[in-house]
Amino acid sequence: MNIARLGIVTISDRASKGEYEDKGGPAIHAWFNRILSSTWEASKRVIPDEQSLIEATLIELSDIVGCSLIVTTGGTGPALRDVTPEATEAVCEKMMPGFGELMRSASLKFVPTAILSRQTAGIRGKSLIVNLPGKPSAIDDCLNAVFPAIPYCIDLVGGAYLESHPEECQVFRPAHAKPKS
Amino acid sequence: MNIARLGIVTISDRASKGEYEDKGGPAIHAWFNRILSSTWEASKRVIPDEQSLIEATLIELSDIVGCSLIVTTGGTGPALRDVTPEATEAVCEKMMPGFGELMRSASLKFVPTAILSRQTAGIRGKSLIVNLPGKPSAIDDCLNAVFPAIPYCIDLVGGAYLESHPEECQVFRPAHAKPKS
Amino acid sequence: MNIARLGIVTISDRASKGEYEDKGGPAIHAWFNRILSSTWEASKRVIPDEQSLIEATLIELSDIVGCSLIVTTGGTGPALRDVTPEATEAVCEKMMPGFGELMRSASLKFVPTAILSRQTAGIRGKSLIVNLPGKPSAIDDCLNAVFPAIPYCIDLVGGAYLESHPEECQVFRPAHAKPKS
Repeated sequence: MNIARLGIVTISDRASKGEYEDKGGPAIHAWFNRILSSTWEASKRVIPDEQSLIEATLIELSDIVGCSLIVTTGGTGPALRDVTPEATEAVCEKMMPGFGELMRSASLKFVPTAILSRQTAGIRGKSLIVNLPGKPSAIDDCLNAVFPAIPYCIDLVGGAYLESHPEECQVFRPAHAKPKS
Repeated sequence: MNIARLGIVTISDRASKGEYEDKGGPAIHAWFNRILSSTWEASKRVIPDEQSLIEATLIELSDIVGCSLIVTTGGTGPALRDVTPEATEAVCEKMMPGFGELMRSASLKFVPTAILSRQTAGIRGKSLIVNLPGKPSAIDDCLNAVFPAIPYCIDLVGGAYLESHPEECQVFRPAHAKPKS
Repeated sequence: MNIARLGIVTISDRASKGEYEDKGGPAIHAWFNRILSSTWEASKRVIPDEQSLIEATLIELSDIVGCSLIVTTGGTGPALRDVTPEATEAVCEKMMPGFGELMRSASLKFVPTAILSRQTAGIRGKSLIVNLPGKPSAIDDCLNAVFPAIPYCIDLVGGAYLESHPEECQVFRPAHAKPKS
């Protein structure tokens, strides 16, 4: 059986101290629950905005837990403590600029401050790492925008085969990439 | 009283030698004059396309003068002497890729050569630095596109509180960010 | 006479071993043949996805052959062997982010997986280097999107003067840039 492991990392000083309820992590979990039809298992982490800790968490989820997809929420703004994109870039072998471009452009339909998000994405080994915003509504907008390309991206780096409920989110694979034997 | 200091840096070999009238700097000044309702003061510089001098000027305006916003005009093209984006990146702690993406996409509605602009933006300390094009008409297109997000960006890095005439340019702040106490 | 030299580099492990017919290179050649009205000459290479070899090939085409424009096809995806953007960045003095942004956004009208392309562009000396996708249909979409800005970009870095059949592809130069003496 092909169980996909997905990492969900909430990056927030306040949520990690319990001063604030983590809303981003549960919003991502609920989105995947609704969209994915293939078997998956979440590995969740809630950590402060410390670059070295974010890097260590992403490395653990990729190299040890074997997550095919790791999504982060929080820490992508311009403030001093926002270092999620820097941590992501530090652990990735390849950057995927199209993800950030499309997520900002999708969010821009709702708020002009979408350009303040420095979200990025990249590949580490067999894992795709994607930065999402902190706010639940913006998380959904961003996942709706980029998820159709995610399963094929994970195929290309040798990760798990993800499938979705097409009526919830239509993923795209070129003809030669489906069905996987 | 909250006086915002704004840096306006014209980067042009010819304008700095007086061979050419600086049109970019005055266009930016006029735009801010029309849009801003809060008190502000400009610090203007006209310098040649020398990377080390651009870097020193941006550092001075950020660290010594205390500008919350520094905008440059000129030096963002592909030519040998165009080094404004490299100088900007060299002095910023964080890059803000959404600014360049949106400015190019806004300019692309007018000219296909908009993709030749390498404009970027970033944060140094409590300053937001934004590269604008050299041409006055393109400056207005770019400021119209990105300014709605600029005051909240400056709030997030601890700079001055900017306000605009809403009929001229509608700036956006999330509900929790206004009004400032 | 002004003969523009254009480099066309197919980057593919399989095509370079002859296991697979190179379709990208010929598609690019056919596109230029149809669009360009000024005199040009192609220098073609078919090489494997080896970063050092891609870099050496780009350097040779720029520094020795004197190509004003070098286009690559292949190697821009997320897979382990896809290193064309890294090789391009390694040999360029200036990056041109607007090219990748516009090509991804143009391809996104056709397939959601357009965001998986890491295509970029940059300047080395008097050469513009542009990464194109591997698939012939996507090559045409990308060239149609960015070519209108390419001749003026090459003017600005001191390369050859390219002209197109306007009914095939309308290139744009500001008034002061045409006609060249």
